[in-house]
Amino acid sequence: MSVSIPARSPGEFFAVIPAGGSGTRLWPLSRSQEPKFLLDLLGSGQSLLVDTVQRLEPFSTVDRVFVVTGGNHQDAVRKQVPSLPGQNVLVEPSPKNSAAAVGLAAFVLNHSNPDAVVGFFAADHVVAEEKAFQKVLATAIDAAKTGSLVTIGIAPTEPSSAFGYIKKGPALADHDDTHRVEEFVEKPSFIDAQRFVASENYLWNAGIFVGTVSAVVAAFLEFSPELGEPLSLIAQKLIAGEDFSPEWDALPAIAFDYAVAEPAAKQGRFLVVPGSFGWRDVGDFASLAQAQSAKQSSDVIVVGDAAKVHPHDSTGIVVGSSGRIITLLGVSDIVVVDTPDALLVTTKEHAQDVKQIVDHMKEQGLDDLL
Amino acid sequence: MSVSIPARSPGEFFAVIPAGGSGTRLWPLSRSQEPKFLLDLLGSGQSLLVDTVQRLEPFSTVDRVFVVTGGNHQDAVRKQVPSLPGQNVLVEPSPKNSAAAVGLAAFVLNHSNPDAVVGFFAADHVVAEEKAFQKVLATAIDAAKTGSLVTIGIAPTEPSSAFGYIKKGPALADHDDTHRVEEFVEKPSFIDAQRFVASENYLWNAGIFVGTVSAVVAAFLEFSPELGEPLSLIAQKLIAGEDFSPEWDALPAIAFDYAVAEPAAKQGRFLVVPGSFGWRDVGDFASLAQAQSAKQSSDVIVVGDAAKVHPHDSTGIVVGSSGRIITLLGVSDIVVVDTPDALLVTTKEHAQDVKQIVDHMKEQGLDDLL
Repeated sequence: MSVSIPARSPGEFFAVIPAGGSGTRLWPLSRSQEPKFLLDLLGSGQSLLVDTVQRLEPFSTVDRVFVVTGGNHQDAVRKQVPSLPGQNVLVEPSPKNSAAAVGLAAFVLNHSNPDAVVGFFAADHVVAEEKAFQKVLATAIDAAKTGSLVTIGIAPTEPSSAFGYIKKGPALADHDDTHRVEEFVEKPSFIDAQRFVASENYLWNAGIFVGTVSAVVAAFLEFSPELGEPLSLIAQKLIAGEDFSPEWDALPAIAFDYAVAEPAAKQGRFLVVPGSFGWRDVGDFASLAQAQSAKQSSDVIVVGDAAKVHPHDSTGIVVGSSGRIITLLGVSDIVVVDTPDALLVTTKEHAQDVKQIVDHMKEQGLDDLL
Repeated sequence: MSVSIPARSPGEFFAVIPAGGSGTRLWPLSRSQEPKFLLDLLGSGQSLLVDTVQRLEPFSTVDRVFVVTGGNHQDAVRKQVPSLPGQNVLVEPSPKNSAAAVGLAAFVLNHSNPDAVVGFFAADHVVAEEKAFQKVLATAIDAAKTGSLVTIGIAPTEPSSAFGYIKKGPALADHDDTHRVEEFVEKPSFIDAQRFVASENYLWNAGIFVGTVSAVVAAFLEFSPELGEPLSLIAQKLIAGEDFSPEWDALPAIAFDYAVAEPAAKQGRFLVVPGSFGWRDVGDFASLAQAQSAKQSSDVIVVGDAAKVHPHDSTGIVVGSSGRIITLLGVSDIVVVDTPDALLVTTKEHAQDVKQIVDHMKEQGLDDLL
């Protein structure tokens, strides 16, 4: 099936949502067939993906929203966002990390809308304060219209070692809410994270990038030609409705930050707009508990039917989707995840280690549970 | 239906198994409809009740075994021990603690077999070493034939405060394996238990009592006439097939130890045969783990399908009957009990407090889960 994206007026905004990653630290809640972005993780009544699409509505009606996802998730994406035009789901033949997903959308859009502005937004992040987010995004879009690449950096609320950081440079002379990026820093040690937060020069990298389509494409070709050149061909094939999986499968699997953002920043070509809008990448059960604690004042946070959970002298989080009664007695910082076919009992302290369990189960061939 | 128990030769042995109590500290494994004695608690392939009946076979063929149980459990008892004659299940109209259960069987037997010897054995205790048990029981039966009341006391292996104790006096002149009982002591404090064990004069009270039928009946009439007199009438009615529930319901609900054994011991009328045969009253999940630890060398004891349990850096016990995968990560001394309709997560330290949860659920009207 060929793809035909209508040309828009210059400066019109497109939103691209790379929807990959399975959220293995949230097993057994998230599974390879039902990853984090398809889950109603916060009990809001809809998935994080649908939250993300709705949050962008003031900027991009759904015909200007593209979701880049794997073949095994395209049906679920279409079902959750039925108003999304069929050709706006870009299907990756294989998972190739974020640079390939971002680049695929950019090169496809470049055929019809090189002068449009495009923003990239993770499908599985939480934004508590939508209005504040939209204000910051509007600033970023304005900055991108000058031809710069722009990211949104989150004012950190604690020295997390779970996120990458952005070191901000001086503010622009004419825009004090926009800074030059000095450096993108990968997930630091806790000690470094403490130093970063104390210095007030660092922001969390939320993986939000904005630029004109032509600027994004040019950055790929300049800083990562091993991706940019094949992606140019892949986009042509995709638009023509031809099979591009051999070229895709040969792409290097690297992160956009690493392939494009870091080298561009080193040449002073990246801007950052700082923002505070209750952003969270809920990557594990400890951060899920933290994200929910604002809404619940009890010692035990419940995601699911709270009437089924009976805590006694306990603290922690219970995620219940099996419908059974769950009784806790004298356990601290406990994590209980109760699904119809698998139960996990751990502690908040070990929340990050859940990934290792999943790796271990994979080695044991227990794929049907993953 | 009237009851007709054939007369046996004097000294023939009858076994009575009071099967009451629900084992609330083992919730949600044990339930009011499926109490501890009906469960295959140790994964042996049969229930504790069936274990108890089999253990007594060298002394009493099943036609000389009586089970005293509640109306809601009589069908399960008959199903688990199909060879048990119908009239050998004595049904209590209401739960009245152990004195009434013991007395009912004794007064019924007294009609046809006053010169027989009868032994009383809890339905839900564990005996690891059957041969050793049988040797001690044979000694106790011999001692009982002289007309004394006899108990079997367990040489304590640790200062448990979960069991009552028996203070043993001097050995009999002609039988150095049989002592006079000085005192029955109710569950002591841990400090007292330590003192008891250090003194080597105390034994665990396993609730095993042996005596001639006429001696047991006489002890009831002498030391607890408020039970003995109505039980005499109740037994007559039971044998005649008449309703005895009004008289039964008026009985005081007290323990046999308190009603008969303690006052008899105070008058020097009780003997004790010490024994060691891997006895356990598995009353909570901590003691269940301990009872199983002899068989399993792993850090996490599994009762159920061990292939379904995946422990990582964890210690404790998992009781799984729901068929789901159970994964533990970084939890210590944890207790996980996974049943189809209820899940309990606690620690060994809180094993005794499970009873309070059950009481709490009862107050909340959650009886269908109890």
